[in-house]
Amino acid sequence: MIKLYTNRLSNNARRVQVALLEKGLEAELIPVKLNGEQFQPDFLALNPFHKVPVLVDGDLTLIESLAILDYLDAQYPDPPLLPTAPRDLAQVRMLTQVQVQEMTPLIFPLLKEKVGISVAADVVETAQTQMQMVLSFYDRHLIEHDFFIPGQFTQADIVVGVSVAILDAFLGFDLTPYTNLAAWYDRLYQRPSWQTTQPNPMEVMTALPQIRAVLKQRS
Amino acid sequence: MIKLYTNRLSNNARRVQVALLEKGLEAELIPVKLNGEQFQPDFLALNPFHKVPVLVDGDLTLIESLAILDYLDAQYPDPPLLPTAPRDLAQVRMLTQVQVQEMTPLIFPLLKEKVGISVAADVVETAQTQMQMVLSFYDRHLIEHDFFIPGQFTQADIVVGVSVAILDAFLGFDLTPYTNLAAWYDRLYQRPSWQTTQPNPMEVMTALPQIRAVLKQRS
Repeated sequence: MIKLYTNRLSNNARRVQVALLEKGLEAELIPVKLNGEQFQPDFLALNPFHKVPVLVDGDLTLIESLAILDYLDAQYPDPPLLPTAPRDLAQVRMLTQVQVQEMTPLIFPLLKEKVGISVAADVVETAQTQMQMVLSFYDRHLIEHDFFIPGQFTQADIVVGVSVAILDAFLGFDLTPYTNLAAWYDRLYQRPSWQTTQPNPMEVMTALPQIRAVLKQRS
Repeated sequence: MIKLYTNRLSNNARRVQVALLEKGLEAELIPVKLNGEQFQPDFLALNPFHKVPVLVDGDLTLIESLAILDYLDAQYPDPPLLPTAPRDLAQVRMLTQVQVQEMTPLIFPLLKEKVGISVAADVVETAQTQMQMVLSFYDRHLIEHDFFIPGQFTQADIVVGVSVAILDAFLGFDLTPYTNLAAWYDRLYQRPSWQTTQPNPMEVMTALPQIRAVLKQRS
């Protein structure tokens, strides 16, 4: 059986958990506490960069959530989480990479401030402003669409969606000005894969010291 | 004809230029000066995140170099720069994402220091040490391999290779301790796509003020 080293509060691990559920793949979930357990030799042997998720499928050990998503789609194609038409595929890749390159660097200072790590006021303000640009960008790509690729739930919905969940549930962003995005996010939330993997407020509270420690390591 | 908005000193734009050459695709290269030209309305209409590369193919406008690489492979599959076997594909994705997630964040402080932007000494030292871990990781994946996927030049060679080129040509890293990596890098250098896109020292010198300005914007 597939094994997934994971943590319910890891955004990147959640991407993979959603994909496994969407594909109906059974997997043994092995929780990794991010309180130092990720630096233990056993875990470093799986991932020298000490991060979750790590997928083990038979004799394959795979790190990096986006690599794992693509592996699952290639190895277990039904249902597909990638479109086949080149232009649709290009859209999924672009929307995903915008999350990685534009959204993630803005989420970190906002998360830090939220958990009480000191961040310069102008950095927080810039992140807030730039996040509006990112959300508008995604909103435009959802005009008259149920999902980013009309009619198909894809990796782009997963990758952007789990980050929007942080903005909504943890950072208190108001999504209502982004009409299409807000409707799409409600749609994601109706999926069992989404509800099963959404951390509840109690889990977040309990893990706050760990979250703080992990964020402090991020420059 | 394909148009590529590009800059010879952009690592991410070089990825796409190498791919176009490897595929023998003709493209009109439109240089974007990174001296403020990227913030002009005309360019922001192409990429609201004001970065090169941007690919225009007919009525498709595409940002994000990794999305462009995948688009080119889907739309112009011959020769392929991605393997088809799920495990090989997973390797390419993993090696690529390690470049994005682990290598790029180390390159930036080192580049900043190199061009005379003040960086804390411990940040530079940590980046140097962690880069050795990244290079060792790649070196292990090249044992007895000509390329990351034996017998096939792929996106992983491109993405990791153009960053290793910065370490070698600009940051003065000694690659000789990484025997497999060094031999692989020599192999890349024999390719016309590599030689054509490698910036020469004079180009780098001339563009130093632009490089400095772009790096200062990066936190």
